[in-house]
Amino acid sequence: MTRLADTPEPPYFAVIFTSLSNQADTADYARTAQHMLELAQRQPGYLGVEETRDDDGVGITVSYWRSLEAIAAWKNHADHLDAQRLGRERWYNAFRLRIARVERATAWSAPDSSDT
Amino acid sequence: MTRLADTPEPPYFAVIFTSLSNQADTADYARTAQHMLELAQRQPGYLGVEETRDDDGVGITVSYWRSLEAIAAWKNHADHLDAQRLGRERWYNAFRLRIARVERATAWSAPDSSDT
Repeated sequence: MTRLADTPEPPYFAVIFTSLSNQADTADYARTAQHMLELAQRQPGYLGVEETRDDDGVGITVSYWRSLEAIAAWKNHADHLDAQRLGRERWYNAFRLRIARVERATAWSAPDSSDT
Repeated sequence: MTRLADTPEPPYFAVIFTSLSNQADTADYARTAQHMLELAQRQPGYLGVEETRDDDGVGITVSYWRSLEAIAAWKNHADHLDAQRLGRERWYNAFRLRIARVERATAWSAPDSSDT
């Protein structure tokens, strides 16, 4: 799977979700996170996602969307609301959620690389 | 060190840098990355940074800035230009760089957590 997102020309929107996991209940977390990724990809206006998490439990997920309306619809999807509740109840010590309008973007690949 | 950034009320700007490391030369990379973080923190208009990288070499660094002018000045800082060149020559297989205007932000901490 490609880990860097190939997004269209700006403008579009980004949801920057940075979190500190409590590193408990990791199997359930991983299953839900995977389900959310797959579900997000089927939402109208979805453009891509990039995510990573280190061994200290610091995770960053950036998802890209065509419009604020698409973000609002995804935020209020029933399964996603459940996952958000579980996140607060069981998985996160803290998080930050920021919604931003992407104004400019650059993509680069090494000349001798098969890219992502 | 706090791993999630406490940023002021929007609007402000985010530089979303997502990269795929070639996982070579990691000591030099780590040293330069640390130097860049420390240098960024001393730039005018710097608001905070969040970053993480997983074992596959997928890294996301989001830095927050007061203005596009602050981002442009940091981009063109001499030491940073050197690091950008080294990144392309030695450390990355691919990257994406996006500049975005943060419109909305939420911070959350677990009630029983000492936060970040």
